[in-house]
Amino acid sequence: MPELRQSLATKEWVIIATERAKRPHDFVCEGRTLAGERPARHSDCPFCPGNEEEEAARERLRLPDHGPWQVRALLNRYPALALEGERVRQFNGVQRRLSGVGRHEVIVEAPEHNSCLALMAPARVELALQAFQLRGRAFAADDRVEHVIYFENHGAEAGTSIEHPHAQMLGLPLVPFDVRGRGDEAQRYFDDTGNCVHCDMWQAELAEGVRIITANDDFIAFIPYAAFSPFHTWIMPRRHHPSFLEVGPAELAKLAQILRDVLGRLYAGLRDPDYNFIIRSAPLRSERPFLHWYLSVIPRVTESAGFEMGSGMFINTALPEDSAAFLRETEPVEG
Amino acid sequence: MPELRQSLATKEWVIIATERAKRPHDFVCEGRTLAGERPARHSDCPFCPGNEEEEAARERLRLPDHGPWQVRALLNRYPALALEGERVRQFNGVQRRLSGVGRHEVIVEAPEHNSCLALMAPARVELALQAFQLRGRAFAADDRVEHVIYFENHGAEAGTSIEHPHAQMLGLPLVPFDVRGRGDEAQRYFDDTGNCVHCDMWQAELAEGVRIITANDDFIAFIPYAAFSPFHTWIMPRRHHPSFLEVGPAELAKLAQILRDVLGRLYAGLRDPDYNFIIRSAPLRSERPFLHWYLSVIPRVTESAGFEMGSGMFINTALPEDSAAFLRETEPVEG
Repeated sequence: MPELRQSLATKEWVIIATERAKRPHDFVCEGRTLAGERPARHSDCPFCPGNEEEEAARERLRLPDHGPWQVRALLNRYPALALEGERVRQFNGVQRRLSGVGRHEVIVEAPEHNSCLALMAPARVELALQAFQLRGRAFAADDRVEHVIYFENHGAEAGTSIEHPHAQMLGLPLVPFDVRGRGDEAQRYFDDTGNCVHCDMWQAELAEGVRIITANDDFIAFIPYAAFSPFHTWIMPRRHHPSFLEVGPAELAKLAQILRDVLGRLYAGLRDPDYNFIIRSAPLRSERPFLHWYLSVIPRVTESAGFEMGSGMFINTALPEDSAAFLRETEPVEG
Repeated sequence: MPELRQSLATKEWVIIATERAKRPHDFVCEGRTLAGERPARHSDCPFCPGNEEEEAARERLRLPDHGPWQVRALLNRYPALALEGERVRQFNGVQRRLSGVGRHEVIVEAPEHNSCLALMAPARVELALQAFQLRGRAFAADDRVEHVIYFENHGAEAGTSIEHPHAQMLGLPLVPFDVRGRGDEAQRYFDDTGNCVHCDMWQAELAEGVRIITANDDFIAFIPYAAFSPFHTWIMPRRHHPSFLEVGPAELAKLAQILRDVLGRLYAGLRDPDYNFIIRSAPLRSERPFLHWYLSVIPRVTESAGFEMGSGMFINTALPEDSAAFLRETEPVEG
């Protein structure tokens, strides 16, 4: 019989559709060009070395004995929010608007067109995460910015037409309603139990074990009990803290290691699926001590459709325990 | 400069990304086979006449002087929820589950494989809507069902692999968190203003006019001020009532007329884009007098990506006023 599971963190329910459940290998992306099979340079790619717009550069990072850069932060050429301008709120009857000011940058994660985080050495993944932190701190210094969304769109199904490995950051002039709601739920859970909901969740996952993919001293990677879609993975820090910007260098290295590991398993096991990842970090300026930052990886192996739009719920056609076992047994791709 | 707009009904914000805005004709779906260009019958299609599973039939509807059926309601062959079984709630630490029982049916909207609502006479669209109501009332008589989601997935981008025109209905054993939240917001708006938020919204849209697509005596079709994606259209009844099941025959005929009109404009103007539509109706058993039922059409002409997942917000790359003007000036396809 199908089963409904509730996410303790968001209170939303997911239908685990066992009657239409697929086996993990049904989600393997056949017949596609893997990221590693592309040419190493592309003359039309705005992110390949030689094609860079120098004036857009905000930051360059490199490891010793490498080229001029390995990771670059750039202004987005078509920003969703304007860098210049005042934050102005206008309410007029039922129309509520705010000027679209904020920050929108791109993190180019490698000079090689045919690379991706799954194929990189952990020390290079760490550089990309350092760039997120450096730019996140710059965003935080802009007092118009109240919340930062860190995300990567990998592949066309995940919403990008650019192949070159890159991530993005948006600095928003408000705290999204959804983020506020999660903070409220975390507060309510703390009021009821005295605990952080995410600390309770990862500890229960670790105790039960069946949905764990891998772990290290600082992080646990698992498919949550109420995962909304197949292979939806959380990388959760063991240490409770609300903000990704508070992560220190040693912890960041551990994050790079486990993120590379998880993405390497997806690449090897599902043949480089399109995916999004997002870092959920607390709002910059509102006290949210019960939020717990984490990174979420969402392979785009199914489509959301009318049911999801109409209900806000999800139908997961894979059993989270099966997805986790599959990834646990998959060796990450070699870089 | 980009602009943020807030939906008064859900309180969520959307970025209207004018810097990256596209013209309406940039969303035209080129190079595809239109629904009307397919063969009229397909031997492998489970919904074509002759291939029907008779035991799954729940309802057959027809107009006078037509074949044995024009619209059929069927049990879903791979139901997301089981028809038989008790609703059992199990809470175990951080794990909350509910048995996956409820209703899942398909409305086959036409015997012809190469039809779709956009190509049908309004009287036939009305039959499909009647089927929704007949089956919705049957769902409501099942006391395990608390909420019904009515939806159509048209095309692969909208989440279906079946070409034959069809819609679906899920009868859920709970009220989704998102639906509860919308009810709370509607209640709060009523407390503040004494009005229904959706009544205020359609009246303001009608007064301003720039986002109206078309209207008849009972319904207004418009792109809402804070539309989350290009061409996202609301078909809103002028009469305030919470439930689609309360719509009478004359009003249903007007709904069929305007739905056919809107889908016909999308088909003609954007070349049969993939779309979802959903009917948002109040929960069956909780008093929600301030909710206002409506139908929402979401053409799938853009992908949601990491930003949307991480923020719960949207980036709309089309100005709602431009999308509305384009559809207002487009003649619906002829049936």
